[in-house]
Amino acid sequence: MPKRKFAVGVDLGGTSIKIGLVDEKGKIHDKTAIDSLAHEGPKTVINQIIKGIKQLRKRDDHGILGIGIGSPGTIRTKKGTVEDPPNFPGWGKIHLGNVIKKEFKTDVFVENDANAAAIGELIYGAGKKFSNFIMITLGTGVGGGIIINKKIYRGEVGGAGELGHVTIDANGVPCKCGSFGCVEAYIGNNYLIERVKAELQNNKKSLLHELCKNNPDQLSPKIIHEAAEKGDQFARSVIIDTGKRLGYGLTNAVNILDITNIIIGGGVSGFGELLFNSVEETLKTRVMKPFRNRIVVIPAKLKNEAGIKGASALVFYKS
Amino acid sequence: MPKRKFAVGVDLGGTSIKIGLVDEKGKIHDKTAIDSLAHEGPKTVINQIIKGIKQLRKRDDHGILGIGIGSPGTIRTKKGTVEDPPNFPGWGKIHLGNVIKKEFKTDVFVENDANAAAIGELIYGAGKKFSNFIMITLGTGVGGGIIINKKIYRGEVGGAGELGHVTIDANGVPCKCGSFGCVEAYIGNNYLIERVKAELQNNKKSLLHELCKNNPDQLSPKIIHEAAEKGDQFARSVIIDTGKRLGYGLTNAVNILDITNIIIGGGVSGFGELLFNSVEETLKTRVMKPFRNRIVVIPAKLKNEAGIKGASALVFYKS
Repeated sequence: MPKRKFAVGVDLGGTSIKIGLVDEKGKIHDKTAIDSLAHEGPKTVINQIIKGIKQLRKRDDHGILGIGIGSPGTIRTKKGTVEDPPNFPGWGKIHLGNVIKKEFKTDVFVENDANAAAIGELIYGAGKKFSNFIMITLGTGVGGGIIINKKIYRGEVGGAGELGHVTIDANGVPCKCGSFGCVEAYIGNNYLIERVKAELQNNKKSLLHELCKNNPDQLSPKIIHEAAEKGDQFARSVIIDTGKRLGYGLTNAVNILDITNIIIGGGVSGFGELLFNSVEETLKTRVMKPFRNRIVVIPAKLKNEAGIKGASALVFYKS
Repeated sequence: MPKRKFAVGVDLGGTSIKIGLVDEKGKIHDKTAIDSLAHEGPKTVINQIIKGIKQLRKRDDHGILGIGIGSPGTIRTKKGTVEDPPNFPGWGKIHLGNVIKKEFKTDVFVENDANAAAIGELIYGAGKKFSNFIMITLGTGVGGGIIINKKIYRGEVGGAGELGHVTIDANGVPCKCGSFGCVEAYIGNNYLIERVKAELQNNKKSLLHELCKNNPDQLSPKIIHEAAEKGDQFARSVIIDTGKRLGYGLTNAVNILDITNIIIGGGVSGFGELLFNSVEETLKTRVMKPFRNRIVVIPAKLKNEAGIKGASALVFYKS
């Protein structure tokens, strides 16, 4: 019997590199993690990626169909070039795809991590049933990926889908992108926690005080969710408000794109039904009327190891 | 010598139907206008279209390559179906394309009027040199059309590009679309004039008082432009503010689409350089950094008869 062939999925993060052997159904058969050592510059990071893949191949003597890499930064997919990934000092422009290809003599696909997440959902996950959808990833940043006719839409230079940087209040709070009132500046993890901390002082009775042991620095999306589950009104209002703001941003995307299927993943999506209902309700009252009855808002399917799976999906995805 | 062949361009408006014979360079060789009689319902309107085209053909014995119709409403382009065009009572869903095709036995192309304007610029106008651009039409409504790889992007049901209904302030003024803080609710002609009227009372020295003969009901974009040209500070601030708000909305489109060429047409675009500079400056300080040095904001080329020309371009456009 011939050996089974797997895709290698590489999730390149600022702290660690996660690597997995993934089959065409998105099942991870083996995985490893290795420090990215980003502070030592691109050469070291590339060597770490190579080291990690070799480790995994040594353990698993399977054939490799190809290597997919999900990376932060602006990606030129043709050459697998990575430009200025945040949190990777000294990168500038690196032909990551070509270097890895030379090393392993197999096809290598490099894609922006938010786009990789969308492709992951398209190939393995909640997006399989759709021709068109908008993928939102909620985390420290708010990322986006746009699938049109079962293909990722990249725009002119691979920068399309910056759904976290859609303005919902042009005179609103400053965002680190240089603009104002971006969705991310309200619901990105850090911004969100800061706002909750500030408002917590006016909500003396909130369960959050107890759940974070009276140390607001311990606040996390998980704790907010826990409090909301226990019926805490303040925590519930935070989640509903998060859904509304995300809904305002998505309204813009829907009205521009005429795409009405929305998939939400990432940490904050753990806010659950309360969040999803709030997003859906906001969209259904705000988007143009011909779109309203087509709105679908669902959670992503790739939960743990979404990064590895999304990256490996690049190998199974014919772009 | 064989007869020259022309496209027929039909600009279907709520008050009148404008029809022209247009060559492949966008030159109008003959034209006519006829009342739409929209209040009499779809049958009458269709008869008026047919009557108008016949009038024109009687005068000009040229061959017809095809008929293009730019129409308000949601359009299903395959069958040329027009759904619920605003200001056309009793329409529902009408297979306009099929009816006209049957009458004239030639190819008929029906397209949303804002999309037709974008295709017009692509085929004859300022968009010829671009593969990708965003077209904005400023008038009573604020319309949009998106060109990706020299094709119109229609979305799932032909409703894409609703750039006038991009939210720039989620808690802002109500818009007739049912949402809040849409671009159109600030810079659509009627909204704009209402705001200027209201603010005019606090600007006693503005030239606008004189130019509208102390009758604010006479205010128009043209008069505001005239006052600004003469150095009136209030009129200038209105135009700069219009550009900013349009820029906020376009920031969202650019960050979602990664398309950085912007073409602006329609009445309010007559505000000229002051408007264009304000839009460009806003975009260059607000869009994601990798997009900033690629931003291009230029006026549409099809000025008068843009409707006829845009509609006729549908015939020369292979979608």
